[in-house]
Amino acid sequence: MPVFLNAAAPEFETEFTAFLGAKREDSPDVDDIVAGIIADVRARGDDAVVELTAKFDRLELTADQLRFSEAEVDALIEQVPAEERVALELAATRIRAYHERQLPEDAQWTDEAGAELGWRWSAVSAAGLYVPGGLASYPSSVLMNAIPAKVAGVERLAITVPTPDGHANPLVLLAARLSGVDEIYRIGGAQAVAALAYGTETIPPVDKITGPGNAFVAAAKRRVFGKVGIDMIAGPSEILVIADNTADPEWVALDMLSQAEHDESAQAILVTDDATLADAVVKAVETQLETLERREIAGASWRDNGAVILVPNLETAAKVSDRVAPEHLELCVADPDRLAGLIKHAGAIFMGSWTPEAIGDYVGGPNHVLPTARSARFSSGLNVLDFMKKTTLSKMTPGALRAIGPAAETLAISESLEAHGLSVRARLNKLNELG
Amino acid sequence: MPVFLNAAAPEFETEFTAFLGAKREDSPDVDDIVAGIIADVRARGDDAVVELTAKFDRLELTADQLRFSEAEVDALIEQVPAEERVALELAATRIRAYHERQLPEDAQWTDEAGAELGWRWSAVSAAGLYVPGGLASYPSSVLMNAIPAKVAGVERLAITVPTPDGHANPLVLLAARLSGVDEIYRIGGAQAVAALAYGTETIPPVDKITGPGNAFVAAAKRRVFGKVGIDMIAGPSEILVIADNTADPEWVALDMLSQAEHDESAQAILVTDDATLADAVVKAVETQLETLERREIAGASWRDNGAVILVPNLETAAKVSDRVAPEHLELCVADPDRLAGLIKHAGAIFMGSWTPEAIGDYVGGPNHVLPTARSARFSSGLNVLDFMKKTTLSKMTPGALRAIGPAAETLAISESLEAHGLSVRARLNKLNELG
Repeated sequence: MPVFLNAAAPEFETEFTAFLGAKREDSPDVDDIVAGIIADVRARGDDAVVELTAKFDRLELTADQLRFSEAEVDALIEQVPAEERVALELAATRIRAYHERQLPEDAQWTDEAGAELGWRWSAVSAAGLYVPGGLASYPSSVLMNAIPAKVAGVERLAITVPTPDGHANPLVLLAARLSGVDEIYRIGGAQAVAALAYGTETIPPVDKITGPGNAFVAAAKRRVFGKVGIDMIAGPSEILVIADNTADPEWVALDMLSQAEHDESAQAILVTDDATLADAVVKAVETQLETLERREIAGASWRDNGAVILVPNLETAAKVSDRVAPEHLELCVADPDRLAGLIKHAGAIFMGSWTPEAIGDYVGGPNHVLPTARSARFSSGLNVLDFMKKTTLSKMTPGALRAIGPAAETLAISESLEAHGLSVRARLNKLNELG
Repeated sequence: MPVFLNAAAPEFETEFTAFLGAKREDSPDVDDIVAGIIADVRARGDDAVVELTAKFDRLELTADQLRFSEAEVDALIEQVPAEERVALELAATRIRAYHERQLPEDAQWTDEAGAELGWRWSAVSAAGLYVPGGLASYPSSVLMNAIPAKVAGVERLAITVPTPDGHANPLVLLAARLSGVDEIYRIGGAQAVAALAYGTETIPPVDKITGPGNAFVAAAKRRVFGKVGIDMIAGPSEILVIADNTADPEWVALDMLSQAEHDESAQAILVTDDATLADAVVKAVETQLETLERREIAGASWRDNGAVILVPNLETAAKVSDRVAPEHLELCVADPDRLAGLIKHAGAIFMGSWTPEAIGDYVGGPNHVLPTARSARFSSGLNVLDFMKKTTLSKMTPGALRAIGPAAETLAISESLEAHGLSVRARLNKLNELG
């Protein structure tokens, strides 16, 4: 049974805190195995990757087959039905248009002291995107990772996607093609992450690795962090729906199930000021769970992690939501703009009943790679800036150095960093000589 | 002896690659100890922090003494000499002015389909800043971490600074006061990171932890990553100076030593197209090393990690620099603007001979917390965005849903996510009913 809480009840704070602290996922400890795989790929390169792919994906390859040829990609893409191709193209176009607005601006100015200051953004040169194979092989995730990288200006974008028993997903390859991906490797697991981070004879190393994956992939990303940049380590996913009496209980139920069907550890939470609506949503969820294709997964998620929280008013709903800091927040209320203004922590907000979260998974435009497991308190969804970095610029004139140099010297001495002070003093002495 | 390389020599590529791959720092493996400390603080809260502080800092406190009182801070700050206070105030003012320009803008627009899209930035609610105690207790680092957090809008900013044997650094407390820090705790090590991440009876938890620290602090930050956000894990620091025949060899030598004096694992690299200048810089370094206060540290850094690289021209210098992706890059050349335009990867660029790197450590304005150990390839110095996160916004109208909903449904079905498709279909059916 999902959890039922009432924000007006005296025991609410205790129960809600326990609910927030509940662990939804047991991460198996695969760290030793992953460390071994990474060391092996570093030491033996392609040979290790070929052997590990034979072992884990039951696929015998030679080193020169690790990468899909253009002809192979062409042939697979031709299998995609026209309707799906058109839908994917619409998604790519909309995602690109949204992300192009995120391109940051450089800045340069001269301040009162005469110092020229500024910064300059530049793209990461090479990025690698991990794409899961099998059941969770989502072409939409390829678009969501690859398009921001290309919009940022990444020159070399590689993806790795395992093809267990040789099965490749044509839609994933089409998504890669539409996104401008430069290289596609049919490898997966920790060995793929290691190959991207350290390079092999046939796979040049990258500077940044993004994309979702299982426990092995997550552990490998953690291990190579520092050698390369990584995106967040994704945890179990969640949706929180705030609904008032204007919401359609069927729609709310389907929106919650569209989160629950991902994964047994996914979480769907309804927060409402209307007990009648709460009952109707719960009934609608149960009805849908009778026939839904993925009813076993969605049912387990709902029973084990679902929640219904009754609140006295929408202000309280916003506060409850901020405590959760949900990955996805849907506002199925009469005035979603007002309610959105009360929210501090959420990965993405879907406003009004005409905006099901699933729109955002595919064609809305914003990214669907979002901070999970309460991390929206401190992090953002994937975006163009994740594939860029900023270089700060400073240029002193003699006048600027005269104005601010003595303070730098004073502070250097106070920190016992003599050479720092001398490097400023030498120039100030020269200026004094020059008069 | 530092490494001498000539980019025109046939063996250059091999030797330069070896130089780039050389490990400058042995990180002791303290992970098990840190795991124990974190578990202890989570389980026993203040009691654990008090005991660990007695053990590691030789300081007996009660739980209510963990935090500095305002009166204690006032008393310590009064000890700061006027000259240092004025210098620190100038630094704070300039750092604040620079970082205020980094505040990002929200966006909202309506696209061709009629969808309202956008994003909204908001600050992390609570942040914690780790400040090392003892020798590496730098007030300038307090400014560089705390000011961006406050500019971002962080409501609650706590710092932890260990006071071994009870010794507090008045300048650190003044820097905290000038930056608007809200809470100061006299604790350090992994126990301070654990207390900030998980909270204790007297220390409320934060959402993000930044700041430098030793191996214990770094290991603790890695461990709490996910529960809270962290900044980068700082590695050994480096400077690369590109100089032509217009550069003053004394100044270049002092600039390189101002990096070398930080730490034996720090690195100073000179890249020049002028062999005469190279010789003069090496001689000047040797002369300075005879008298410099921190000559043992700086000398070890120079001998073990220093390098001089001769290049045929400045274009090659830029390419060599990009391979290093230095934390600090100084351009002591006649036309620094032109050369800066050729650089892709650097944490901060200091342009022209009047801009010693030490200016940027204190009073330039840009942040001095910068990506080390080649990570400027994929990451930026600390900035206001590190204390903010972005929430994406989507709002569909019935018309927008009609336009793009069918594509979402198609893609949901192709990914075998039925509830996703149904959540869109239910709304489309309603629109069809409405006609």
